[in-house]
Amino acid sequence: MATHKLLLLAGDGIGPEVMAEVKRVIGWLEREGLASFAIEEDLVGGSAYDAHKQAITDAAMDRAKAADAVLLAAVGGPKWADVPYEARPEAGLLRLRKDLELFANLRPAICYPALADASSLKREVVEGLDILIVRELTGGVYFGEPKTITDLGNGQKRAIDTQIYDTYEIDRIARVAFDLARTRRNKVTSSEKHNVMRTGVLWKEVVTKVHDADYKDVELEHNLADSLAMQLVRWPKQFDVIVTDNLFGDVLSDIAAMLTGSLGMLPSASLGAVDAATGKRSAMYEPVHGSAPDIAGKGIANPIAMIGSLAMALRYSFNQGEVADRIEAAISGVLDAGKRTADIRTAGAEVISTQAMGEAIVAEL
Amino acid sequence: MATHKLLLLAGDGIGPEVMAEVKRVIGWLEREGLASFAIEEDLVGGSAYDAHKQAITDAAMDRAKAADAVLLAAVGGPKWADVPYEARPEAGLLRLRKDLELFANLRPAICYPALADASSLKREVVEGLDILIVRELTGGVYFGEPKTITDLGNGQKRAIDTQIYDTYEIDRIARVAFDLARTRRNKVTSSEKHNVMRTGVLWKEVVTKVHDADYKDVELEHNLADSLAMQLVRWPKQFDVIVTDNLFGDVLSDIAAMLTGSLGMLPSASLGAVDAATGKRSAMYEPVHGSAPDIAGKGIANPIAMIGSLAMALRYSFNQGEVADRIEAAISGVLDAGKRTADIRTAGAEVISTQAMGEAIVAEL
Ligand SMILES: CC(C)[C@H](C(=O)O)[C@@H](O)C(=O)O
Ligand SMILES: CC(C)[C@H](C(=O)O)[C@@H](O)C(=O)O
Repeated sequence: MATHKLLLLAGDGIGPEVMAEVKRVIGWLEREGLASFAIEEDLVGGSAYDAHKQAITDAAMDRAKAADAVLLAAVGGPKWADVPYEARPEAGLLRLRKDLELFANLRPAICYPALADASSLKREVVEGLDILIVRELTGGVYFGEPKTITDLGNGQKRAIDTQIYDTYEIDRIARVAFDLARTRRNKVTSSEKHNVMRTGVLWKEVVTKVHDADYKDVELEHNLADSLAMQLVRWPKQFDVIVTDNLFGDVLSDIAAMLTGSLGMLPSASLGAVDAATGKRSAMYEPVHGSAPDIAGKGIANPIAMIGSLAMALRYSFNQGEVADRIEAAISGVLDAGKRTADIRTAGAEVISTQAMGEAIVAEL
Repeated sequence: MATHKLLLLAGDGIGPEVMAEVKRVIGWLEREGLASFAIEEDLVGGSAYDAHKQAITDAAMDRAKAADAVLLAAVGGPKWADVPYEARPEAGLLRLRKDLELFANLRPAICYPALADASSLKREVVEGLDILIVRELTGGVYFGEPKTITDLGNGQKRAIDTQIYDTYEIDRIARVAFDLARTRRNKVTSSEKHNVMRTGVLWKEVVTKVHDADYKDVELEHNLADSLAMQLVRWPKQFDVIVTDNLFGDVLSDIAAMLTGSLGMLPSASLGAVDAATGKRSAMYEPVHGSAPDIAGKGIANPIAMIGSLAMALRYSFNQGEVADRIEAAISGVLDAGKRTADIRTAGAEVISTQAMGEAIVAEL
């Protein structure tokens, strides 16, 4: 059995607590002989800043590059509000994405039946919802230069951010979206603001070209980002795969996650290209939720998104889809049995701790 | 009684139909001696392109500048998908905003009690909702240069958009938000992505400075745009006034509008600075909804947002708040009486045409 080289980056806030529950699941998988792992751990975000005055060290980056997959919990918190911009917690996350070339961010938004009532939306609007946001993750306004603040004198400053997209960046993310749509309900909705942004014009043009050349069997529709945001709230079940740029993807995937009432539940995968020589694909898996500093250390955080991220790693990096299915079934089983962490409390359910949730999932396995 | 110089730009799609109902209300106001108008009309958007190969002519711009206020219905539609980028329908709207320096876009999101069930959100989440999005409208990625598509050869192109904000642009929109909050529930939520954008860093800094210098009595909170989008869906009643940039404002205000179930109902105001010499303030009023080409010409569009935009003009440009209140009360009255256009159909209500809705509102006045 191949040994999976995994780097665990627990990060900040509730990160270490939810990562502890992933380790519990990893321990179980190893004891059962279902998978074998070589685990390393390192710091990222505010905790890395506290130790090294950097959001991630070169040594940690080398470990990330050497690993088969990275599991990251969450970074950030008010404690680091005043650290230098280059060393802020998010800079660690952004460097991981950029240096590992993780251009494809997959964010499933699934409404677990047991949690449909936790949504602020009507049950019929979200029940059975299963959409996938494919977000471009290494381009756009997140990384474009110039990205500056200049002093103009007289108390005036000028701030600049630059959104840049090249054809090849749009081409490759479009292919990821179309390929995934073929494994699902065969529909892609592409979103941009071509009516005001030149990057939107190029985005729409390239996605259309890729579709017409190689994916005519997949249904493609275009929807402006503001209109898509509306439609997500109005009737999200009309969508299957949504492909969009880094910034719109940031906002739209958070909306999609919130619709489901399952925010603490949702994992994500960030994938690079498959290396033609080695067959290796760099990959990082993380929950959609943040570091939740307000509840850190209380033992009440929901570890399900983090454990679900391990399942995604087994599916996308390690070709162990069946083990992934088993973990996901165990998560559903625990929810069906009425066990909840505080964030997904529903009427009549039993509220348990982070650790108890991890134990319950292992017991269900 | 002062005569209000009004320019009506009906635009495209359902524009002319809903504008006809505004004229009906204007006629009634004049007959009753409640207000006096000097009306001009012109083309904008696709209809201007069809006539003049431009999205708005210089002559129309001159009329807009000479007017006390502009009422615009909606622009755009698939018919003009292939016109040159500079002449696309949206270019007319963007030129109006930019050349009239309409930097402050006010977008109220109000849930009419009679329509709470038309929302995809649970009744308790939206009932009584009354928030105001204050969107910066003449800066940011909408207008920053460079804004280009370059051919790189080898089938590769590069698209660039530039988001620029200067201190004074953020300062003035922040003041609009704080001033409005004082007339409401005294709370402002400022939104940006300072964790990845330099414009976000400057935005947060300037809003905080304006607050601490001149608006200490107003509660100020900061919320990242992705997180705010989530919170809008989860529990929108936590907000009062939200102030944000042009692009985030575009997306967030559409979400807010959709929450209310009243999308066809919501007007907006776009305001310039008060000219120190003349006391005049350029202003444009328009519905939040678009040109809805799919239902154009059928006589079923909802004219309420357009009529509500006239009410906003009376309030903000003409100092006739009482007449504005009367129009808004008439709208509520018609809804309470169970009359609906198709877009806001609720169980048991009577569905009527665009014209019948205009007539019903005048009758209620
Ligand atoms: C933490 C932050 C930099 C990050 C982003 O903006 O991409 C987060 O919001 C996310 O969606 O992963
Ligand atoms: C039509 C379009 C250019 C416009 C915008 O993006 O500002 C619209 O979406 C709006 O919100 O007024």
